Amino acid sequence: MMINKPYHLFLGDVRDDLAAKTSCGVAHWCPDDCIGQYRMVGCGADTGLPDLSMREAAGRGARTLIVGVVNAGGVLAPSWLPHLMEALEAGLDLACGLHARLNDVPELSERAERLGRRLHDVRHPQGKLIVGTGERRSGKRILTVGTDCSIGKMFTSLSIEKEMAARGFKVDFRATGQTGILIAGSGISVDAVVSDFISGATEMLSPAAEDDHWDVVEGQGSLMHPSFAGVSLGLLHGAQPDFLVLCHQPGRAHMRGLPHRKLPSLRDCLDLNLQAARLTQPEARWLGISLNTRMLSEAEARAEMERVANEFNLPCVDPARTGVGALVDQLGGP
Amino acid sequence: MMINKPYHLFLGDVRDDLAAKTSCGVAHWCPDDCIGQYRMVGCGADTGLPDLSMREAAGRGARTLIVGVVNAGGVLAPSWLPHLMEALEAGLDLACGLHARLNDVPELSERAERLGRRLHDVRHPQGKLIVGTGERRSGKRILTVGTDCSIGKMFTSLSIEKEMAARGFKVDFRATGQTGILIAGSGISVDAVVSDFISGATEMLSPAAEDDHWDVVEGQGSLMHPSFAGVSLGLLHGAQPDFLVLCHQPGRAHMRGLPHRKLPSLRDCLDLNLQAARLTQPEARWLGISLNTRMLSEAEARAEMERVANEFNLPCVDPARTGVGALVDQLGGP
Repeated sequence: MMINKPYHLFLGDVRDDLAAKTSCGVAHWCPDDCIGQYRMVGCGADTGLPDLSMREAAGRGARTLIVGVVNAGGVLAPSWLPHLMEALEAGLDLACGLHARLNDVPELSERAERLGRRLHDVRHPQGKLIVGTGERRSGKRILTVGTDCSIGKMFTSLSIEKEMAARGFKVDFRATGQTGILIAGSGISVDAVVSDFISGATEMLSPAAEDDHWDVVEGQGSLMHPSFAGVSLGLLHGAQPDFLVLCHQPGRAHMRGLPHRKLPSLRDCLDLNLQAARLTQPEARWLGISLNTRMLSEAEARAEMERVANEFNLPCVDPARTGVGALVDQLGGP
Repeated sequence: MMINKPYHLFLGDVRDDLAAKTSCGVAHWCPDDCIGQYRMVGCGADTGLPDLSMREAAGRGARTLIVGVVNAGGVLAPSWLPHLMEALEAGLDLACGLHARLNDVPELSERAERLGRRLHDVRHPQGKLIVGTGERRSGKRILTVGTDCSIGKMFTSLSIEKEMAARGFKVDFRATGQTGILIAGSGISVDAVVSDFISGATEMLSPAAEDDHWDVVEGQGSLMHPSFAGVSLGLLHGAQPDFLVLCHQPGRAHMRGLPHRKLPSLRDCLDLNLQAARLTQPEARWLGISLNTRMLSEAEARAEMERVANEFNLPCVDPARTGVGALVDQLGGP
């Protein structure tokens, strides 16, 4: 699947940046590939890119509109349709990472067909998947896991990959979600595979490699999230991580999408993930903890990182504030 | 998915009962819902039901032909097609639990359409699924879990449902795999749903009910199986079981499909499943242990059940030898 860049980013009518995390992630990690953003009335998200109509973006060179929003159930809102039709008319392809498929909307598929545009449903794995075996593979792997969904696993993974590459490691980022796939240009959306194949899809995504090669595998969901823990467990077993990084956002009020459910403790997450990881990788251990401290002041953030590092005797970073050097330091040289 | 009973059972041309295990399972658990069996020349399997042509079975009231055979690859053999067409002509719907879909065979789908028959591909979930919430539901639930796949979870679940019904409990068996779905006449094949929806599919399968109503939910896979643990965890979170039953086969040499991996210990399985269950059902506890002792002598089996019961201080049964009365005794009256 080759998606034409540069991108125009669709934010729809979502409430906040978290609900537009795909568009925001692409804007952050591929700034040179993004022309602008498109927001409907009432949209509360902002990537910082210029607001452009479909025609303006196409006129400035955009080739593909990224439907970069997330919602429970992964549906295409009917209210978005006129805007997506307009993008097709303006000359843009569409790429979407929702569960719902662009290709399943007759108006879109007919219009795209007539105009010669392409519709990319990046969340839907193509080709034959395998059942996982749990057999050990060569090469080294780091997996990010979380106390919750949407808490910094992709950001942390990409930060680690960037830092490792800068230090001369042989390293690849392995994308498991829609945003990561749009950024990396390849990957498998593991939460979209048939559940029999979760661990097998992850084994395919991060195949046997040279002994000094590293994969940084993007985690999904949380072992402690009642909606998605099955995905997280299959991914953990398939990844066979040598090292785990726990991602967390201090002060988050409740589990994503579940207003009455508090976040689990770091201690419970550290224990549960390591125990589960050891089914397929008995040597698994923690590399450190990655906090998303954007809701804290600089002083509060520093204090929290220090507190967490001391409590669990692990390096603690915020990729956005401190970088991830303290994690990569643990790996020695390339 | 509601499948019309009674059934006529298709055994095709398979060699033995093991290759007709779905038909044999249906015949065992739903004898009153089965009119007859249909065997092609050379078939070596036998459910014990009368051999009837499609027309004879339809004449005696059969509504659906169950394609209850298994084979490598889960394919529909071309040699079966004339017989399946005959069933449609005779007035029967078709239901099949293979990977291959009846609906993907143009001759079958066209003939069914023309005659007004239905084709049920029970392995492939239909309709809209939901993301699980983990919110508590009314009614009571029992879930079977296992040390491995194919170790007696369906058999144990059906035994418990039958015993509870006999004692006057309001109880339903909730099927999560192909054979169970054909026995129950409805259900969701959770290992075939997109992985984001595992727990949600289970929540749909076992909805809120009266306070004195029980669901016995069929488990799948094992939390300790590297290929399928994600399925098992999502199912466990979605089921919110008040009670768990651990299924095990003493003496099994290795995990199913993984010749180099030994079975986990009962202790590890008891601990891990209960810990995981409590995420969505803090009151979850063990009802007991169900052993499949068919490879043991009567004396060995009795000794093993006693040993396990004493070691873990839980009732231990073999549904095929002792029945499951000792488990149901724990539930009090209906």
